[in-house]
Amino acid sequence: MSENRSEISNLGEFGLIDRIHKNVTLTNPTTLTGIGDDAAVIQGHDQDCILVSTDMLVEGIHFDLSYVPIHHLGYKAVAVNVSDIAAMNGKAEQITVSLALSNRFSVEAIDALYAGIRTACQNYGVDLVGGDTTSSTSGLVISISVIGRARREKIAYRSGAQVNDILCATGDLGAAFMGLQVLEREKQVFLADPNMEPNIEKYEYLVGRQLKPEARTDIVFDLEEAGVKPTSMIDVSDGLASELLHIARNSGVGIRIYEDKIPIDHLTYETAVEFNLDPVTCALNGGEDYELLFTISQADQEKIKNHPDIHFIGYVHDRKDQNVLITKGGTVVPLRAQGWDHFRS
Amino acid sequence: MSENRSEISNLGEFGLIDRIHKNVTLTNPTTLTGIGDDAAVIQGHDQDCILVSTDMLVEGIHFDLSYVPIHHLGYKAVAVNVSDIAAMNGKAEQITVSLALSNRFSVEAIDALYAGIRTACQNYGVDLVGGDTTSSTSGLVISISVIGRARREKIAYRSGAQVNDILCATGDLGAAFMGLQVLEREKQVFLADPNMEPNIEKYEYLVGRQLKPEARTDIVFDLEEAGVKPTSMIDVSDGLASELLHIARNSGVGIRIYEDKIPIDHLTYETAVEFNLDPVTCALNGGEDYELLFTISQADQEKIKNHPDIHFIGYVHDRKDQNVLITKGGTVVPLRAQGWDHFRS
Repeated sequence: MSENRSEISNLGEFGLIDRIHKNVTLTNPTTLTGIGDDAAVIQGHDQDCILVSTDMLVEGIHFDLSYVPIHHLGYKAVAVNVSDIAAMNGKAEQITVSLALSNRFSVEAIDALYAGIRTACQNYGVDLVGGDTTSSTSGLVISISVIGRARREKIAYRSGAQVNDILCATGDLGAAFMGLQVLEREKQVFLADPNMEPNIEKYEYLVGRQLKPEARTDIVFDLEEAGVKPTSMIDVSDGLASELLHIARNSGVGIRIYEDKIPIDHLTYETAVEFNLDPVTCALNGGEDYELLFTISQADQEKIKNHPDIHFIGYVHDRKDQNVLITKGGTVVPLRAQGWDHFRS
Repeated sequence: MSENRSEISNLGEFGLIDRIHKNVTLTNPTTLTGIGDDAAVIQGHDQDCILVSTDMLVEGIHFDLSYVPIHHLGYKAVAVNVSDIAAMNGKAEQITVSLALSNRFSVEAIDALYAGIRTACQNYGVDLVGGDTTSSTSGLVISISVIGRARREKIAYRSGAQVNDILCATGDLGAAFMGLQVLEREKQVFLADPNMEPNIEKYEYLVGRQLKPEARTDIVFDLEEAGVKPTSMIDVSDGLASELLHIARNSGVGIRIYEDKIPIDHLTYETAVEFNLDPVTCALNGGEDYELLFTISQADQEKIKNHPDIHFIGYVHDRKDQNVLITKGGTVVPLRAQGWDHFRS
């Protein structure tokens, strides 16, 4: 391979996924949707579908155990998988958990990790049904697969956004990213002077959003109650901009969002300013919020307009080359995905 | 955690799994069987069940890329998962593949890995429907989850063996282990003198069994054709002895096997002798054969007695503390699991 070597870093994560994806053919009649959405869709019986998704978390890439309590890591690993099923408008029911761990980890540490996993399972009504446990030569790798369910007509794909649909985002954005900045800063302070007391109380909300995100299963429930089926949906794992572009590309549409409609918590805002960061950029590109981003038809807006945690941030139009942010000053700025890409440095 | 630290190596892999398992409660009515068999069983519709299993392969623990061609690794990673579904008497239909990989790996290497994955998918009629791709700080980790199906009444659990049932093993055992010994020896020879030509032609069958094992989906088909439902089943991944003890323990029975009935290929036998190893020990404890071990009621023996690849190696009895091997000389030797345990050294 030495004569003809291409670097993965030149492809990037999405480039690599596209490369893998384009060579895949689906042959089983039970496979309804394969790679390319938050979860695969498998035929159950009649209108009943099985949803499958998987996520891998690698120490040193996705988490740093010097400031991530290991039980929170267990909780988060489950939550991000449940979030993928929520993003299909489905209900997560089972997970499998595979671990590779070095002898650096004690039995007590693994107990704490599973305590977090179990707490998340209880909160989301998910059963731990299997897994694999192996040693590793370095660090911890957690691979979780999740099985969910949805009625076929309820499933929301990334590809369903229609022209004139309204773009909705839940909760607030950018907080998890700012929480990470706070934790990283405190780590540096601690490394410079181990006697320094950590100064994170003030940032508790942000740190909590980073360490213990919640899947928005409540929103899936609320939409069902309100009689609203999102025309498209995705969860915000890589950053709002990246997810908006996924919906636009997969649906063959363009999207337009308004800076002043992006939900940003005041603490996220203040902390970003403190860190000399632009709060809107943090919300657009920060990632790990695990909020839901979805589109609804205009006719449905009335049904959820009073929901305290659903924000209407823009709309869908037919110019698929125009995915833009309208600033408070009225300037039109093209959206670019600058979310997490672990293969680029 | 430093005050009260217990080492995972003292628990061992099965001890750790038991510890995780005993704290798990199942709450979803769709979860029919959780941890503890080759796959979890999830309610589909009516009598249709979904089977889920997962396996993680870690570089430096499960494979050594200095002698494992990476496309074979891709093939094997799929085959071992398909084998878990076969061991439930089911049919694998979908897989997800998650990778953590360092920048040591080129795009060409990943292409080769996926070429192996795709070949296995085609051979087993399985669709690649999802996954996750991330970087790693060291080496390659492959985590595959597999989704399969079976009619509820067809599913074979580890726990179903009945007194007087006949124990059956497919193919031959110990070859994958001897293949590994050959590869390891050649690696040492190469490291000592890189100009030495590898000497593995003679051992091609063994090396092939190690590098490119096949899931015995053909046996599942043949049993169905013959009208035989195994009363219990497991695949031989950790070694015959370990799997026999799983069946005995889960079924609450004892098992008795005969040394002269254990299927061992003549090349496995000769090579074991060449390596100063006991061929029967290699078959009992070698692992990675991915053959099927199952029990049938005596009434069914007639239906498969002429199958060229199914061997009757012993029977089930009611003394659950007596799991034994009868040697060619008639000596009764207790069976002990000395299969792979990556946490013990």
